[in-house]
Amino acid sequence: MDFSIRAANVEDCKDIARMILELAEYEKVADHVKVTQRDLEQDGFSKNPFFHGIVAEVPEQHKAKEGHTKIGYALYFYSYSSWSGRAVYMEDLYVMPEFRGKGIGKALMSKVAQLGLAAGCNQLNFTVLDWNKPSLDFYLSQGSFDVTADMGYHCMRCEGEALEHLAQP
Amino acid sequence: MDFSIRAANVEDCKDIARMILELAEYEKVADHVKVTQRDLEQDGFSKNPFFHGIVAEVPEQHKAKEGHTKIGYALYFYSYSSWSGRAVYMEDLYVMPEFRGKGIGKALMSKVAQLGLAAGCNQLNFTVLDWNKPSLDFYLSQGSFDVTADMGYHCMRCEGEALEHLAQP
Repeated sequence: MDFSIRAANVEDCKDIARMILELAEYEKVADHVKVTQRDLEQDGFSKNPFFHGIVAEVPEQHKAKEGHTKIGYALYFYSYSSWSGRAVYMEDLYVMPEFRGKGIGKALMSKVAQLGLAAGCNQLNFTVLDWNKPSLDFYLSQGSFDVTADMGYHCMRCEGEALEHLAQP
Repeated sequence: MDFSIRAANVEDCKDIARMILELAEYEKVADHVKVTQRDLEQDGFSKNPFFHGIVAEVPEQHKAKEGHTKIGYALYFYSYSSWSGRAVYMEDLYVMPEFRGKGIGKALMSKVAQLGLAAGCNQLNFTVLDWNKPSLDFYLSQGSFDVTADMGYHCMRCEGEALEHLAQP
């Protein structure tokens, strides 16, 4: 199937917000999504953006059942490893279910890798849910490894009242 | 004990590079450290830096056995959650062993939380090694939670030849 991958622009935020929700529904946590289209517009497309995005598009004749032509996306940002230096973090990788198995997810991830290497990054980092076997298998098949399983790293988070409290001098 | 926390500048990179190695030795992976003082200078203190840093200093009369007055640091960068929006990621938090138990680590982490909140961040994220019980207990006592244990997230990575291969169109 014909598809193209390109940098996201501010007009894509409506579709990205829709797909973020679809992904969260798949991960069974749709109620955790607080980010809105407007947040994405402000946080990704103003000076000093907090993230960058790429979208996958199909031609009009292959549009989704619901009429969408923007059918996949990835969000990423630059990060740093104090051991390895420059790194890129892929926050999300999503392809709408009816467009899976056509190499679109692979193409999106490949593009993030290209952009990272072009910026001098040595690592591409991301997370996966341990019960999401199809995604885990896909990532392992691409030569990624499970840092948590292999090296014992756990993701930690402080948020909400705990974060406010921590920030008290 | 008297100590101060301030934003790192390019002159701190020598001490930060030294402490990165000390931390890696504690984590038993000193041979994994590829980052040099020069990398830190370029990656953290040029236009569009890949990270920011803060350092903890003690007065000359309390200097370390080896003569150091810069005795702790944290590195951080801004990131993004497609569910929660703006976030800050703490890449490293380190205090030299002889200065532990004096609230310096807490003060460094508190400063990262303050900077994150000031930038509109809703989360402070970081990782911890599962065998590093003292650090894990410290983070939990600060109201952080273990995203890997509680929600099943695993850290994944693609690097080296696998990353080069992934980037091939």
